[in-house]
Amino acid sequence: MIIPTFNDIQATHIRIHKFIHRTPVLTSESINAMLETGLYFKCENFQKAGAFKYRGATNAVLSLTEEECSHGVATHSSGNHAAALALAAKKRGIECFVAMPHTAPPVKIEAVRGYGATITFCEPALESREKTLSEILKKTGATFIHPYNYLPVICGQGTAAKEFLEAEPDLEIMLVPVGGGGILSGSAIAAKAINPEIKVYGCEPLNADDACRSFHTGQLLPPLPPNTIADGLQTALGPLTFDIIRHKVDDIFTVSEENIVRAMRLIWERMKIIAEPSSAVALAVILENPGLCREKKTGIILTGGNVDLLNLPFGYT
Amino acid sequence: MIIPTFNDIQATHIRIHKFIHRTPVLTSESINAMLETGLYFKCENFQKAGAFKYRGATNAVLSLTEEECSHGVATHSSGNHAAALALAAKKRGIECFVAMPHTAPPVKIEAVRGYGATITFCEPALESREKTLSEILKKTGATFIHPYNYLPVICGQGTAAKEFLEAEPDLEIMLVPVGGGGILSGSAIAAKAINPEIKVYGCEPLNADDACRSFHTGQLLPPLPPNTIADGLQTALGPLTFDIIRHKVDDIFTVSEENIVRAMRLIWERMKIIAEPSSAVALAVILENPGLCREKKTGIILTGGNVDLLNLPFGYT
Repeated sequence: MIIPTFNDIQATHIRIHKFIHRTPVLTSESINAMLETGLYFKCENFQKAGAFKYRGATNAVLSLTEEECSHGVATHSSGNHAAALALAAKKRGIECFVAMPHTAPPVKIEAVRGYGATITFCEPALESREKTLSEILKKTGATFIHPYNYLPVICGQGTAAKEFLEAEPDLEIMLVPVGGGGILSGSAIAAKAINPEIKVYGCEPLNADDACRSFHTGQLLPPLPPNTIADGLQTALGPLTFDIIRHKVDDIFTVSEENIVRAMRLIWERMKIIAEPSSAVALAVILENPGLCREKKTGIILTGGNVDLLNLPFGYT
Repeated sequence: MIIPTFNDIQATHIRIHKFIHRTPVLTSESINAMLETGLYFKCENFQKAGAFKYRGATNAVLSLTEEECSHGVATHSSGNHAAALALAAKKRGIECFVAMPHTAPPVKIEAVRGYGATITFCEPALESREKTLSEILKKTGATFIHPYNYLPVICGQGTAAKEFLEAEPDLEIMLVPVGGGGILSGSAIAAKAINPEIKVYGCEPLNADDACRSFHTGQLLPPLPPNTIADGLQTALGPLTFDIIRHKVDDIFTVSEENIVRAMRLIWERMKIIAEPSSAVALAVILENPGLCREKKTGIILTGGNVDLLNLPFGYT
C-alpha cells in the first residue's frame, strides 16, 4: 500500500491553492473561558462547496490526464463529497456522474444538481450504491473518485492541517472528525511532519464508532449500522486510511449524540457561524473530556457547514 | 438639537477601538453571481455580545464620569441593546439595571443575566417598560442609556461604517437596517463625511415602516403596531435619529416578511454565518429591487447574529 508523504501534500497544495479558499482560523473568547482552554477553529465550513471535501476533489480532478478528463469522473455519495466533486469537475469543464440514494436530503441533491452533475438515484444501502456506480463506470468510462480511500483525495484533505499549522504553528493538539478517515489521515501526515510533538486525535460519534474500535483492536473492523446525527461520519474507514491512522494518530475519542448537538449549538450561538453536526464532534470531545485540552493550545478542524435549515437538531436536547 | 459630527465619531473610535472587535468584511461569490452585483458584508454579527449595539453601549459607558459610574447604568430593552449595555457595564465594573418584558425570548434574558445585569420584568407595552425604568432610575440614581436616541450611542454605532469604508473605500452604496435609527444615522454621518458621493439607504420591514413613512412625509410619524420577524427593527425613530436621517440618508426602502426570510436563508446557506432577521433586511431590499445595486459596489451592514435556535423562521417560506 502506498502511503502518501508530507512531500505529496506539499506538492498537492501547490497544485490546488489557487482553486481553493485559504479558510480563516477563528477563536471564541466565551468558549475558551467556559472550557478553560485555548481553542482555534480552522473553518472549512467556509471552503468552496461548504466543506473540506473540495480540497481532495479538486486535487483528484486536477490529477487526471486529458484522456481521463474526456470521460469525466464519477462517485457515489449522499453528501459533501458529491457536491465537491461536481463543483471541481465543473471548474475543469468535465462531466461528473453521481450515484445518490433517493433518500438524500433535498438540499444536497439540489447542490449536486446545481453544480451540473448527472445524478442516478439508487437505494441507500451500500450494495445498491456500488452496483449503480459500477453501471455508470461501465457506460461512461469515467474515473471513480473514491471519497476518502484514495491517495489524491487524502493529499488534498491534508492541506487543511498544513494551512492550519502555518497560521498557528504552536498548536499542541489537533482534533479532527473521523468518518471514512480522509481528513484525519491527511491531517495526521501533515501535522506530524510539521511538528512531531503535536498530538492528533480522531473524534467520532459513539453511534458510528468503527474507527475507534478498529484503532484500539488494530484490525479494520466492519461498521455496525450507524445511527448518528453526524451524517458526514456514517462511513467506515478504508484499508488505506486505516493504515495511516493506526500509525500516525495518537488516539480516537467517541462522543454521545447529545454532546454533538450541545457542541454544535455552542458554535452557532457563540461564534455565529454554521457548522454541520459532523463538524461539532471535535468540540464535543472536549465537552466530554474537559481535562484533555485544558490550558493546551488546541486546534479543531471544522469540517463543513452544509445543513438542512428545515431540519435542525436543536430541539433534540 | 445637537447633531453629532464625523469628528465626534472619530473621537469615539479612538475611545472604544480597544474594547470592540474590528469585525471582518466578507463577500460571497455565489450571492454576487446570483444577484449580478458586488456585495460586501460588514459582519457586526461577530461583534461582542453579537451585535453592533456593543459599539454604542461601550461608548456610552466609557463617557460616564466616575460619579455617574458609582450609580450604574439602566435601560429598557428586550434585545441586543440590553445585552450590549450589560456587557459594557460589566467590563467597566459598574452596575447595570434592565427593565425587560417578561415576554422576551429566554435566550435574550439569559444573555443579559449572564453578563451580570439586574433584570426587572415588566409588561411588553412601552408604557410599562418606561414606568418600570423610571422606578429603577429613581431608586438607583443610574444613568439612562437610551438604545438609539442618544448622542454617545449614535457616535458609537457610526464607527461600524467608518471601519467599513476604511476596509472598502470605493463602496458606491451602503445599505443599513433601520429600527430606532441609531446605526442608520451614525452610518450616514460617517459615510457621507468620508465620501459625499456614496448613497446611504435605510432598509426597513414593510410591517414596521414608520421610518419610511416619516422620511417621505418629512414628519416624525408615530409607529403602527409592528408585526415583523425582524425583532430588532420594531422600535420607532426618535427625534434625534429622525433629524439626522432626513438630512443625511438618500432613501428608505421597505421589504416583505417573505423576502426577509429568503435573504436570511441565503446568508446562512451561502455564507455559512448566522445573521438575525433584522440583519437580513438589507439583502432583502436587493432581492426586491434587483436594479438598485446592479454592477455597483455595495456595502451591507449585517447588524447582528442573535437568534433563538429553537424558533427559526425557515419553515415560513
